[in-house]
Amino acid sequence: MNPLSQEELRNRLTALDTPSIADAMDSIGLCGGLLGIQCQVPDHIVAGPAFTVMYRPFSRNVEEFHNAGNYIDQVRRGDVIVVDNEGRHDCTSWGDILTETALLKGVAGTVIHGAARDIGEIRRMNYPLFSTAIHMVSGKNRVRISAVQEPIRVGEVTINPGDWIVADCSGALVVPASLVEDVLQRAERIDRTEQIIRQAVRAGTPLETARARYRYDRPWEEAATA
Amino acid sequence: MNPLSQEELRNRLTALDTPSIADAMDSIGLCGGLLGIQCQVPDHIVAGPAFTVMYRPFSRNVEEFHNAGNYIDQVRRGDVIVVDNEGRHDCTSWGDILTETALLKGVAGTVIHGAARDIGEIRRMNYPLFSTAIHMVSGKNRVRISAVQEPIRVGEVTINPGDWIVADCSGALVVPASLVEDVLQRAERIDRTEQIIRQAVRAGTPLETARARYRYDRPWEEAATA
Amino acid sequence: MNPLSQEELRNRLTALDTPSIADAMDSIGLCGGLLGIQCQVPDHIVAGPAFTVMYRPFSRNVEEFHNAGNYIDQVRRGDVIVVDNEGRHDCTSWGDILTETALLKGVAGTVIHGAARDIGEIRRMNYPLFSTAIHMVSGKNRVRISAVQEPIRVGEVTINPGDWIVADCSGALVVPASLVEDVLQRAERIDRTEQIIRQAVRAGTPLETARARYRYDRPWEEAATA
Repeated sequence: MNPLSQEELRNRLTALDTPSIADAMDSIGLCGGLLGIQCQVPDHIVAGPAFTVMYRPFSRNVEEFHNAGNYIDQVRRGDVIVVDNEGRHDCTSWGDILTETALLKGVAGTVIHGAARDIGEIRRMNYPLFSTAIHMVSGKNRVRISAVQEPIRVGEVTINPGDWIVADCSGALVVPASLVEDVLQRAERIDRTEQIIRQAVRAGTPLETARARYRYDRPWEEAATA
Repeated sequence: MNPLSQEELRNRLTALDTPSIADAMDSIGLCGGLLGIQCQVPDHIVAGPAFTVMYRPFSRNVEEFHNAGNYIDQVRRGDVIVVDNEGRHDCTSWGDILTETALLKGVAGTVIHGAARDIGEIRRMNYPLFSTAIHMVSGKNRVRISAVQEPIRVGEVTINPGDWIVADCSGALVVPASLVEDVLQRAERIDRTEQIIRQAVRAGTPLETARARYRYDRPWEEAATA
Repeated sequence: MNPLSQEELRNRLTALDTPSIADAMDSIGLCGGLLGIQCQVPDHIVAGPAFTVMYRPFSRNVEEFHNAGNYIDQVRRGDVIVVDNEGRHDCTSWGDILTETALLKGVAGTVIHGAARDIGEIRRMNYPLFSTAIHMVSGKNRVRISAVQEPIRVGEVTINPGDWIVADCSGALVVPASLVEDVLQRAERIDRTEQIIRQAVRAGTPLETARARYRYDRPWEEAATA
């Protein structure tokens, strides 16, 4: 089997949406939803391999700003940066300088388990940012990077470097790297089945009848046909 | 007394807003505010009888999707669907197929004590959706309908089938069916009093003076006159 | 030293943003971020002396509305009203009448540690409102003013009357009155240093190099020069 290129994976995943991909994950007994992550800049869907960053508290007295963001120069074009700041809302781990650098490097988007700042400027730059909060107090001198490209956790879900992240206005989820092609194909079949059900409902079929007829119970098995 | 038609109730309630109606409820010692429910699609006010749906956890191992939404074919034109999913943010009980079906049936809107998904598409369809969260993981195989058209609770507030729901960008509230005409009339008097106070303030009267002059202490009693 | 006029302070603070000012506070070992306060009306930055209001629960049985907002006639042009309602989300302490009065008086904006209502109308009036929640149930008969122009607290942070409040889409913060000129000057230097770093990154310098070259570790010390 020829594995799909990263570009083809990205194109086909972003032609879908996070709900279809979450359903495809369900069909193999997995849950990848990153709880509490919200879309902060409207109308984006992003997909790409995770570049993981872990921040942890840092209480040393310092007389200078501790630089919190120098991993950015290692991130590759097309990656999605995922930051584990333990869901903290009292200090940030993303802002305008990182956003401008990420845009210049072709980074696909950023998912923060924690707060971001400079959100007005990030919206003007139209950068796909997802986070659990917005606040203005910097993480400098409060947190520091404790790991880069190591496994991180958001709630119950582990994100390994290179796992695929998909994020849109319904939230962000992770698909294990080894399963991404299977999940993509299941999600495409689910999406086709849902479109056929919606066409039937538009034509007057009751929703319950349409769901039974087009096998909404096992939509990942094969493409339904109208 | 001729009770008002459902259409007249709806027209007169949606000419007001939830704050005026909440104040009218206060004037008879009741609180109907549904805590934590947020407007997810801007610039709607909806009013209609509640169609209640209760979901509860469902942990049976399954090999197929458990269909979570077949109540929709029973909902009547003009109803507001109210879903009690215990405020869960980790799985959804509303999405694009239910939205499209609800629009075709003339459902007035949906209030979810819990999460919804497909929010981008729901915004494009401009459907009045209110919920406590947005996430993409389906309720299928996680929750199932345990009751339809039975009393449900959101926080401290009970919602009986047929109670009136009013929802706008300030949130969602419930008015007991037997009180809806009294509450409407009080809310209309409150609204008139507030408009007169605002005109006086615009004309230079201090707010405290205007409130005293136009009986802001008992605004539901009679229409103030300027 | 001639202290700056209130107008010049306001103009120079609103030419910056809350992240730069928070960084300037960090440089003198202080944190003024008001946790959980969110921008409710987009695209404003406001700055002005705090007019503080404290609400506390009020459980006396009453047969009339207890008027919750009569402090407004004491607020001065250019002030920022800061309301401590203990972060309560179940009843409001701001709405459309107060908004219209505040606009007529030239109040700069309002920050609520708690809920506001009439948010649709407030957005149409384009008034700079910041709060921790939106709900429609009034504070009348639930809370009453227990202090005006006394120190209040939001989380860990104390706000004294006359302290400077700055708020934008990244949130709201307080700067002690005695420090506001020093904080402003530090924030202006930080802002200039950040702009020079961003120009360097746009010209191809790696972010880590640019930060080292332009002293991102001590950006408040002197204006960096490219």
